Amino acid sequence: MIIEMGTTATAKQIEMVTREIKAVGLDFQINEGRERTIIAVLGADIKKTFDPQKFKALPGVEDIIPISKPYKLASRDFKSEDTVIKIGGIEIGGKDVVLMAGPCSVEGESQIFRCAEVVKKAGGKILRGGAFKPRTSPYSFRGLKEQGLHFLRRAADQFGLLVVTEIMSVGSIKLVADYADILQVGARNMQNYDLLEALNSCKKPVLLKRGPSAEIEEWFCAADYILNGSDTPNVILCERGMKTFERSTRYTLDIAAVPVAKRLSHLPIVIDPSHAAGNFRYVPALAKAAIAAGADGIIVEIHPEPKRALSDGAQSLTFSDFARLSEELKVIASAIGRDM
Amino acid sequence: MIIEMGTTATAKQIEMVTREIKAVGLDFQINEGRERTIIAVLGADIKKTFDPQKFKALPGVEDIIPISKPYKLASRDFKSEDTVIKIGGIEIGGKDVVLMAGPCSVEGESQIFRCAEVVKKAGGKILRGGAFKPRTSPYSFRGLKEQGLHFLRRAADQFGLLVVTEIMSVGSIKLVADYADILQVGARNMQNYDLLEALNSCKKPVLLKRGPSAEIEEWFCAADYILNGSDTPNVILCERGMKTFERSTRYTLDIAAVPVAKRLSHLPIVIDPSHAAGNFRYVPALAKAAIAAGADGIIVEIHPEPKRALSDGAQSLTFSDFARLSEELKVIASAIGRDM
Amino acid sequence: MIIEMGTTATAKQIEMVTREIKAVGLDFQINEGRERTIIAVLGADIKKTFDPQKFKALPGVEDIIPISKPYKLASRDFKSEDTVIKIGGIEIGGKDVVLMAGPCSVEGESQIFRCAEVVKKAGGKILRGGAFKPRTSPYSFRGLKEQGLHFLRRAADQFGLLVVTEIMSVGSIKLVADYADILQVGARNMQNYDLLEALNSCKKPVLLKRGPSAEIEEWFCAADYILNGSDTPNVILCERGMKTFERSTRYTLDIAAVPVAKRLSHLPIVIDPSHAAGNFRYVPALAKAAIAAGADGIIVEIHPEPKRALSDGAQSLTFSDFARLSEELKVIASAIGRDM
Amino acid sequence: MIIEMGTTATAKQIEMVTREIKAVGLDFQINEGRERTIIAVLGADIKKTFDPQKFKALPGVEDIIPISKPYKLASRDFKSEDTVIKIGGIEIGGKDVVLMAGPCSVEGESQIFRCAEVVKKAGGKILRGGAFKPRTSPYSFRGLKEQGLHFLRRAADQFGLLVVTEIMSVGSIKLVADYADILQVGARNMQNYDLLEALNSCKKPVLLKRGPSAEIEEWFCAADYILNGSDTPNVILCERGMKTFERSTRYTLDIAAVPVAKRLSHLPIVIDPSHAAGNFRYVPALAKAAIAAGADGIIVEIHPEPKRALSDGAQSLTFSDFARLSEELKVIASAIGRDM
Repeated sequence: MIIEMGTTATAKQIEMVTREIKAVGLDFQINEGRERTIIAVLGADIKKTFDPQKFKALPGVEDIIPISKPYKLASRDFKSEDTVIKIGGIEIGGKDVVLMAGPCSVEGESQIFRCAEVVKKAGGKILRGGAFKPRTSPYSFRGLKEQGLHFLRRAADQFGLLVVTEIMSVGSIKLVADYADILQVGARNMQNYDLLEALNSCKKPVLLKRGPSAEIEEWFCAADYILNGSDTPNVILCERGMKTFERSTRYTLDIAAVPVAKRLSHLPIVIDPSHAAGNFRYVPALAKAAIAAGADGIIVEIHPEPKRALSDGAQSLTFSDFARLSEELKVIASAIGRDM
Repeated sequence: MIIEMGTTATAKQIEMVTREIKAVGLDFQINEGRERTIIAVLGADIKKTFDPQKFKALPGVEDIIPISKPYKLASRDFKSEDTVIKIGGIEIGGKDVVLMAGPCSVEGESQIFRCAEVVKKAGGKILRGGAFKPRTSPYSFRGLKEQGLHFLRRAADQFGLLVVTEIMSVGSIKLVADYADILQVGARNMQNYDLLEALNSCKKPVLLKRGPSAEIEEWFCAADYILNGSDTPNVILCERGMKTFERSTRYTLDIAAVPVAKRLSHLPIVIDPSHAAGNFRYVPALAKAAIAAGADGIIVEIHPEPKRALSDGAQSLTFSDFARLSEELKVIASAIGRDM
Repeated sequence: MIIEMGTTATAKQIEMVTREIKAVGLDFQINEGRERTIIAVLGADIKKTFDPQKFKALPGVEDIIPISKPYKLASRDFKSEDTVIKIGGIEIGGKDVVLMAGPCSVEGESQIFRCAEVVKKAGGKILRGGAFKPRTSPYSFRGLKEQGLHFLRRAADQFGLLVVTEIMSVGSIKLVADYADILQVGARNMQNYDLLEALNSCKKPVLLKRGPSAEIEEWFCAADYILNGSDTPNVILCERGMKTFERSTRYTLDIAAVPVAKRLSHLPIVIDPSHAAGNFRYVPALAKAAIAAGADGIIVEIHPEPKRALSDGAQSLTFSDFARLSEELKVIASAIGRDM
Repeated sequence: MIIEMGTTATAKQIEMVTREIKAVGLDFQINEGRERTIIAVLGADIKKTFDPQKFKALPGVEDIIPISKPYKLASRDFKSEDTVIKIGGIEIGGKDVVLMAGPCSVEGESQIFRCAEVVKKAGGKILRGGAFKPRTSPYSFRGLKEQGLHFLRRAADQFGLLVVTEIMSVGSIKLVADYADILQVGARNMQNYDLLEALNSCKKPVLLKRGPSAEIEEWFCAADYILNGSDTPNVILCERGMKTFERSTRYTLDIAAVPVAKRLSHLPIVIDPSHAAGNFRYVPALAKAAIAAGADGIIVEIHPEPKRALSDGAQSLTFSDFARLSEELKVIASAIGRDM
């Protein structure tokens, strides 16, 4: 249920509405838009306890809009203006296309510093790198853990970059948030609701990867789990490929997720061409497609020596391939009226 | 890597082998089979630090078998005999086909007691019911939490049943394990490695649902996360449907998962026809197919009044449909030489 | 649009209705049920040219039922009673479960005669075998063509079996129909509308395989292409596996297609476990599941020496495995009150 | 099997090799590259009857390369240089990105003439339009047939465009080829081998749509069916979306098919964003992505009044949206160094 306040509604009127919502045992979330304030009413019992007629009669209320979608806070209905996430001088979801890159796993100090230097040179703004690695097999390399976070932070600081890294458990949120600027929820954890809800009190933006078998609607619902309770809409959507029958790529990049997300949600969306492709040869074409389709950013895996990578070597770009790609991406960004 | 000890190997020889494994910084797990002992050597660095020649030379060692599969402990290579999980007088994975049933969510005391009575009458051994409910939308009913566990336990005890219920977070393992006999990992959490690993020190068996986009191999890897560190192979596999393009059912039941699991793994496998179908009309046919295919059990959703269910009403059987189905299942079990 | 005639409607009244349908430029098909006659009105312009009020007023008409499904003739709405296809003394869709078996390709006279003998001994009624083989690669073995048909017919006749074989082109319908009792449309041709329509004037029953990415609704539409113009509902549905992400089987058998088809259509349905599994080890479990789920028949690949088969050897059963399976299937058929 | 002739091999030597191939009962196809001639040896019995040693010894032969891929003529191994299809002054697969557009179905003279005018103005080179329409339901509009072809040809001629239109049956190849410049094989017929083989003697280029559940490798095999027997490599690949679980678009556009095809095949590839999206709102983003990814062309559905279209109205662009899109596409083409 969405309560649309009138364009001249006062703070006092808004407060009265929210008081009434609480009085019937429901939750709410407010979006102060440029023109008017929108209040989303939330709660499992909403159909039973919310009386639209009563609320429509309150002063300052213009309209009550029932929403049949299972997600609310991530929707354009709740917030019609694009969300721009501002962090450390960077805007995600604004005019600029943001380049994020780095190795799959932080493997050591020198490796991550070399990557950071290359990312900076290429015009990248954000350094990626895994310290806690979710691996299909428990016997694979699972990251340097806190030491990896430490290297990552220092490398990013040295070259004036921000840090995005994966968070795998509720227990490590505090630790990871101490080092990272953006917390990444991996594809396998997209419906780990325990983790999503724990993140909604975290003040840092969350990069939410789409699960390999998640419908777009389920992905937006997962975003709502994080947004529900947050002060600010701080979720960045990230498409990284669907599980399908095709085997020439690791996953199938759903490029249409970009225009679909832009239409139905106000949240920024970035593309991870590396996991989708699973093969470095296809990464440049997917990255270019993503920007042309309107993505707000790209998150790419690079490695000083892909063949020796402890994880995901096959899909990592060499430094020189990455440098060339970043130049091509700038040209495409500019062709669609954006900067990178 | 699998170390196959000779049939006459002594406890001392086995101990020497495990000491050597620890000495090179690796882990291991032992399977004492009827004929011989098998030792799985585990660890991310195994290729670097394990020298097969050296181990082959140790007394009592018959052979060293490299395993290319990403899972080891769940595999038939590690344990050729079927695992039978014994709990509260019941055997899962043995000769009997085990019937588990109950409501999607525990909604109240009377509802779960009525269900338990019906399950018992139908020959069921285990009562299912959700107290913590993972829901796609955060605004749906999410369970009665601890009160639900309490009702569930009392209902089961009253009718001499065991309890299986879902565990959604590391933080609630202790609580749920206090009430339940079997802990269920839901499909969405199949690759929540943080949760899986926390479960490997839990003494209770785990019913591991296959994720809707998980390949069978990934599912077995998830089992290995739980088995790695457990004293006993206490995982029950549960197939509940794949995400596909077909829309006349909620998911596509992968009935072939039964013979595939039986061939490649020693773990018991049960089928959840309710979530797969998403429609009560199709549940009986899927349940019958599952038993004919060789499943070790069935886990079915029932409800006193499916139309009023707070979750999954469309796929819940009425009590009378369930009673009829249980009779049909017994006939099929008997046709393939099993009891129910 | 479905016109339901009253239970006492006369032949003359029915004729008047059909005359009116033709008068407005539409087609129709009649189902004379046990209780009443149903007339399906067909045509692309139906919404524009059919006036329900006018038809409702005609004598003998009881009701006009708009059908929103894209298929009509294959639906239970058009024909509520199960269709039983009678051919050469066999009934498909009746009380008996029909066993069909044979090699993927007819490779020679001796091979097909040996197979026919084994099929007969096992209680099989229909001999399968490919003479025209659709192959993914144009460089694979593509069948013995007419000579294969000739061997197939003679082998079947020798052992009192019927013949089902694939038809790949409009041009060969006459030739194939001269030799075969049932014409099979392969999965790749399920939406080859040119072929489907050419078959609707053929007097022989058609076994219509579901395409590997066809939704069940599309499959029923394909059946309508054949039924539209046929005198009798002579289509046998055949599920043979869907294209999914799972790789441990060749395709994913959609076992739920059995109860879905039984609910929404009056046509018989058989299961092909061999193509679905792609691995002989999994064929028995799938075959048993199919019968338990209510399939009207099974079509299985067998071969005297699977390892030397020119096509699909990996999924073909040996004669002894097939003999054993047929015994198991009879027990399951009997457990659900059918014979085989 | 690929025979690589030396760079100085003479015509006589080549002829001797082909004579030997025929002598052992095999077929062949020749690619005269810029540097050297490549001979593909084809036939189901190749493993038995082709002796590499014997052929390696023939004068002029440099190397014999076994090919394990099931397709040969569509592969880069057979022809390393990009194939450029030249027709009516246009090049497909060359430097220019080719814009093809038109209505889903030709519905009447005025509609197709208005479309043709708009296509021409936007810089389009090829007019698309269906005269024979494959429809899932037999009761949908199935095209104006020959009259549609007639209108299409006249409209194209009036505005200096080429014509691409679908061919649905072997029987209509001659008729369609009389009107069209390029024959389209629809997605549902991608494995209609009867049709594919009949097209290999047709002199006109074929636009081969990828089936909605076809792996890329199967698609290339389908191309080989057409190429096998053709004088020239006259196949244009067309990706139009895969059948997946996602429901916010009609199909999932596999944008990675562009770089995969460019790497593994020499054939040109175009993208159909309209069928993939199934929603006009998403067509521009997909079209832009396709060009950025390196596609050689775009085939788009437009309609004077999409809401009144007899088929696929939801995915058709209005004339003004199409005009705007064509301008955007030119900018992107130019950004990657191509013209449109």
